[in-house]
Amino acid sequence: MNIEVRIIGRVESALTELAAAPRQADEGAPGAWLVFDPEIVPGLMNLEPGDEVVLLTWLDRARRDVLRVHPRGDTSRPLEGVFSTRSPHRPNPIGLHRVEITAIDGARFQVRNLEAIDGTPIVDVKPVLNEDVTAR
Amino acid sequence: MNIEVRIIGRVESALTELAAAPRQADEGAPGAWLVFDPEIVPGLMNLEPGDEVVLLTWLDRARRDVLRVHPRGDTSRPLEGVFSTRSPHRPNPIGLHRVEITAIDGARFQVRNLEAIDGTPIVDVKPVLNEDVTAR
Repeated sequence: MNIEVRIIGRVESALTELAAAPRQADEGAPGAWLVFDPEIVPGLMNLEPGDEVVLLTWLDRARRDVLRVHPRGDTSRPLEGVFSTRSPHRPNPIGLHRVEITAIDGARFQVRNLEAIDGTPIVDVKPVLNEDVTAR
Repeated sequence: MNIEVRIIGRVESALTELAAAPRQADEGAPGAWLVFDPEIVPGLMNLEPGDEVVLLTWLDRARRDVLRVHPRGDTSRPLEGVFSTRSPHRPNPIGLHRVEITAIDGARFQVRNLEAIDGTPIVDVKPVLNEDVTAR
């Protein structure tokens, strides 16, 4: 079975270099815009400024053949399995970002705290659920 | 640009019918096994029973041409944009599941609270981060 992902938009950000991107959003990510494909805009109905959403991206500069990494790229730390890390390098480099919508202008959504670089493909947006945010 | 997703495993669950699957994990999902492709097992190093992880699946029975849905399939409720819901029907039907690992047997991981049906493809596993679970 082949599964092809559809790009539904792109990140527009002042971050243009991998090296400049903070490794996690709480490490100083700037504001950014999500620029959606006009065809999928009907699916964005009901989202409003102030909403927190889970943004899924495809980290297209990542390596897909990596199964073990040094945490945070620090070679003094022992290798770990990629699935126990948030490394972008992994078989399916899906980025998972919790962001707050701060403004909406048609197909353009401004968000706070996004660590993705300019041009990163967007693949999904979901509302935050209680089960995501509370320990069981 | 074509993006092809690699299936890294499958869900093994007593849930075999869409109709029987709870809509959210806190609505009575049973235990299930994640059965990984032996090739990616090195990437699972460092995961242990007791860990909570974010499991990403590809909901392969979903419709990809849907942009508006009645919440929870209830036609008495007004249509909403799919990106403001957790409907499986969306351009990229990626399932996002927070689960706890309860046992590991080689390439088989038993998890608690997974609402996916038997055979659902697995596409990624990530550790839960503080930024996922705390409000900003």
